[in-house]
Amino acid sequence: MNEGRNESRKEEGAAQARPDRKRVSTLYDGVLGSDRAALARAITLIESRLESDIDDAQELLGRLLPKTGQALRIGITGVPGVGKSTFIETFGLHLIEQGHRVAVLAVDPSSSLSGGSILGDKARMHRLSQRSEAFIRPSPSQGSLGGVAGRTRETMIACETAGYDVVLVETVGVGQSETTVAEMVDVFLVLMLPGAGDELQGIKRGVLELADIVAVNKADGDNKARATLAQTEYASALRYMGLRADGSPRTARTVSALTGDGVPSLWKEIESYAQSLSDGAFLEAQRRRQRTHWLRTLLEEALLQRLRQDPDVEPRLAEAEEAVAEGKVTPLFAVRDILRHL
Amino acid sequence: MNEGRNESRKEEGAAQARPDRKRVSTLYDGVLGSDRAALARAITLIESRLESDIDDAQELLGRLLPKTGQALRIGITGVPGVGKSTFIETFGLHLIEQGHRVAVLAVDPSSSLSGGSILGDKARMHRLSQRSEAFIRPSPSQGSLGGVAGRTRETMIACETAGYDVVLVETVGVGQSETTVAEMVDVFLVLMLPGAGDELQGIKRGVLELADIVAVNKADGDNKARATLAQTEYASALRYMGLRADGSPRTARTVSALTGDGVPSLWKEIESYAQSLSDGAFLEAQRRRQRTHWLRTLLEEALLQRLRQDPDVEPRLAEAEEAVAEGKVTPLFAVRDILRHL
Repeated sequence: MNEGRNESRKEEGAAQARPDRKRVSTLYDGVLGSDRAALARAITLIESRLESDIDDAQELLGRLLPKTGQALRIGITGVPGVGKSTFIETFGLHLIEQGHRVAVLAVDPSSSLSGGSILGDKARMHRLSQRSEAFIRPSPSQGSLGGVAGRTRETMIACETAGYDVVLVETVGVGQSETTVAEMVDVFLVLMLPGAGDELQGIKRGVLELADIVAVNKADGDNKARATLAQTEYASALRYMGLRADGSPRTARTVSALTGDGVPSLWKEIESYAQSLSDGAFLEAQRRRQRTHWLRTLLEEALLQRLRQDPDVEPRLAEAEEAVAEGKVTPLFAVRDILRHL
Repeated sequence: MNEGRNESRKEEGAAQARPDRKRVSTLYDGVLGSDRAALARAITLIESRLESDIDDAQELLGRLLPKTGQALRIGITGVPGVGKSTFIETFGLHLIEQGHRVAVLAVDPSSSLSGGSILGDKARMHRLSQRSEAFIRPSPSQGSLGGVAGRTRETMIACETAGYDVVLVETVGVGQSETTVAEMVDVFLVLMLPGAGDELQGIKRGVLELADIVAVNKADGDNKARATLAQTEYASALRYMGLRADGSPRTARTVSALTGDGVPSLWKEIESYAQSLSDGAFLEAQRRRQRTHWLRTLLEEALLQRLRQDPDVEPRLAEAEEAVAEGKVTPLFAVRDILRHL
């Protein structure tokens, strides 16, 4: 559809001004007016990889940016089977009950246009998807974690300005996706199964470190005692792993996404932590650092990409990577060599 | 001294070939012959920031590289006061007793030419510094963590080829120094104080995550019981934090750097883990990944540095960083803007 429009523009022969201000204004008004359909179109625009769409998306985002920042951003992860979808549904419904409007996004680098994603699946959050106060969007299909992350960050901007005051960003344990999501949210929640003791639960190294709060799920029925034991052990482990941004200790609790037990007090804790972050100016400092870090990441990747696309440099770069991997030259030698030929 | 030699070379008027093959050969022979003085000079050359010295250092390292890889690289960190120096001395002496030759390096980004470093202080490891089988070198003064890290990696190469078969790399908790050291060693050891329970010990977030082994120090006298309790709690915490590269669980033990208790069995465990890494080809895979990652890091920093040094681009870059930090433009917008003007 977009390509058709571009084609006809070329045929017009006029030097069509980019960005397309009319299109952008329409979306801007729609998003600020909390029009769901406009928000969905805005996000589709943000996810598009067409140069012209990117121009329009950036224009739109630039206009929306001053109006963002008031939403609370919560990252959620957990191994497959921990009950993320059920939890997000139960949690989301509770938030709505408390008067909030909830956006549910997902970062899934393994999602593809054809295959779809296992996250952000409305079918698995049926009751939540029925609510007008909820907006659920599957992960963009971008082929790379960086691409997905960038689009998700920008989608958050659109959702916030459309009036969603809590944004949940779900992820699975693929590659560096947890670290990436932790770097775009205010609070990071790790869901765990109620096993304890020698069960390592396939926990990926580095994930527990990211948690501001650990919630042991499935704390219901026969599992209640095991869940409480696990919660105690996680709370103990977290004591040795450093503090939150506001200096408070990281916590572990039990929840049951099925019965709803523990969900209200989990939300109370998150609200209270968010308030503390805000009161102490930690929130703005954290977001500032995240933005700056993302700029640097994007810049470094773009510069490296340019190098790879330069036919004079690319072979030398590939050769250097091979030689370094094999231990034949030092990394510094390889870099100096590449730079000398730039 | 080096500047004087450069000056006289210029005065000679000849286009002096770089690198200086005679100088490099002399150092090469000395290092391979395990000549301590030659090794010290080689490391000084590696640490130099003069372009001509860097050329010579890279030539030397290129020749030494094929002869490296057989040493075991162990990273060691812990909060100030945990007893790192005493531990390294006791541990180092035990290694020597077991027939090894030990190099002790340090990564301390806060060290400066005038102020020196608190790490790698021979005075604090007096008995070890007296042994011919030990080689202790303070942290290079490089002004940036990246500079120190790069020089330390290359210094390891020189030490290994000079016959030191265990290389200890010490660091303190400044910035990202622990992560940086973990990325250049085979095994990462975190020393802890014998406090337990509510004592958070100023543990920086992210450090426990890096540990392959936690050693609770000062497990002697009145502290023995507390140390054992702490060890149990760390062992429990580590169970929830993922496995080592060879799939084995991460462990916690007690040691006393003062009495030597626990040091032999700590070494046995490290040896056994190293063997397992080697047997399973994990060691080479890990080192390969570390080299490749370092190449990428160096390349990205060099490209970014070039940008900052370009008078046409730098103001735009600085402006972009400010605008992104303030939340005025999206990081992607800023990057596209900068790239358009390259």
